[in-house]
Amino acid sequence: MPVLPPGYSIRRLQARDFEDVVETLKVLTVVGDVTRTQFEETLAYWKSVTLKVGAHSVPTYNPHVVVNAGGRVVATGTVLIERKIIRNCGLVGHVEDIAVAKDQQGKQLGLLLIQYLTDLAHETGCYKVILDCDEKNVGFYEKCGYRRCGVEMDHRL
Amino acid sequence: MPVLPPGYSIRRLQARDFEDVVETLKVLTVVGDVTRTQFEETLAYWKSVTLKVGAHSVPTYNPHVVVNAGGRVVATGTVLIERKIIRNCGLVGHVEDIAVAKDQQGKQLGLLLIQYLTDLAHETGCYKVILDCDEKNVGFYEKCGYRRCGVEMDHRL
Ligand SMILES: CC(C)(COP(=O)(O)OP(=O)(O)OC[C@H]1O[C@@H](n2cnc3c(N)ncnc32)[C@H](O)[C@@H]1OP(=O)(O)O)[C@@H](O)C(=O)NCCC(=O)NCCS
Ligand SMILES: CC(C)(COP(=O)(O)OP(=O)(O)OC[C@H]1O[C@@H](n2cnc3c(N)ncnc32)[C@H](O)[C@@H]1OP(=O)(O)O)[C@@H](O)C(=O)NCCC(=O)NCCS
Repeated sequence: MPVLPPGYSIRRLQARDFEDVVETLKVLTVVGDVTRTQFEETLAYWKSVTLKVGAHSVPTYNPHVVVNAGGRVVATGTVLIERKIIRNCGLVGHVEDIAVAKDQQGKQLGLLLIQYLTDLAHETGCYKVILDCDEKNVGFYEKCGYRRCGVEMDHRL
Repeated sequence: MPVLPPGYSIRRLQARDFEDVVETLKVLTVVGDVTRTQFEETLAYWKSVTLKVGAHSVPTYNPHVVVNAGGRVVATGTVLIERKIIRNCGLVGHVEDIAVAKDQQGKQLGLLLIQYLTDLAHETGCYKVILDCDEKNVGFYEKCGYRRCGVEMDHRL
């Protein structure tokens, strides 16, 4: 079983992670000129959206980070929980925006983060957790316990 | 340009659609023994979750139905709007749970519903709209203006 390197930990994303997270996300795609205020507003929005599961209120957005021994964010990822009608008004977890800083790839951080988010979704009651990825990352997600199940399609203006 | 058959229309899902929607969703997957109360609670939850876009508050969940001239639901589908950090705190639309009643397939209802949900997402400000589908439905979504862009993977307990 892989474990985090000494001193590393996984926790929820916090407002003070602003610069590190924006930097980390750049390995994934264009982040743009996100200001600290926009970042904080997004975090506040994410916190405000909850879901009732039995007697509990749980967050819909679950952004997390891996931090190193020095407290620097080295990886990030989210699981969003969707309420459906199908499958007995079932819940589905959507893993989104997984990014591991370039100099920290290959240390099992991606795998441990995916496992963490997947466990969180299943513990919340999701009957499945899904994600979309590039063909080139299928092998990575298979190592995380995922299997190919469909095609992602997009529409852009 | 395809148009709805005479008397058909597209509107938001309402509580009175309970039986029709549950029936329609059965072409897609297992719905289970969803009670009217659970259905109404889900609708109420969906309505309670909103998103601020500029000065406006818009729904996160956007469940819609196609109804025929007799007011019966003959197709259903949703677009869920996700707020991200990447792409300038961008919005992404997730099209989910598209189903057209068996006896109503092949009348362009699926296509018109997808176009409606896709337009709604872009008008809300989404930089892209995505969906996951079976390999066998790729041709349908291509006709709706979507293109293959990745792999869907899932994790089930
Ligand atoms: C893809 C990514 C998330 C993987 O994270 P990582 O921390 O570098 O990977 P890990 O060290 O946890 O890898 C776990 C296992 O998967 C393997 N693996 C990693 N990337 C892989 C890939 N693209 N294809 C096949 N296997 C891969 C590793 O070799 C390792 O195998 P091992 O346990 O047998 O040694 C990371 O490299 C990344 O952020 N890349 C750039 C952005 C990106 O592509 N994000 C995903 C968008 S879909
Ligand atoms: C797939 C589905 C949504 C399509 O809806 P529909 O109303 O039957 O399809 P439409 O009449 O709008 O079809 C529009 C066009 O796509 C084509 N098309 C429909 N299904 C297709 C498929 N599976 N593959 C390729 N083309 C397809 C139609 O022939 C039509 O083409 P045309 O305009 O050239 O005549 C519907 O059949 C359905 O609900 N199926 C069962 C559940 C399901 O599979 N849901 C989607 C899960 S990913």
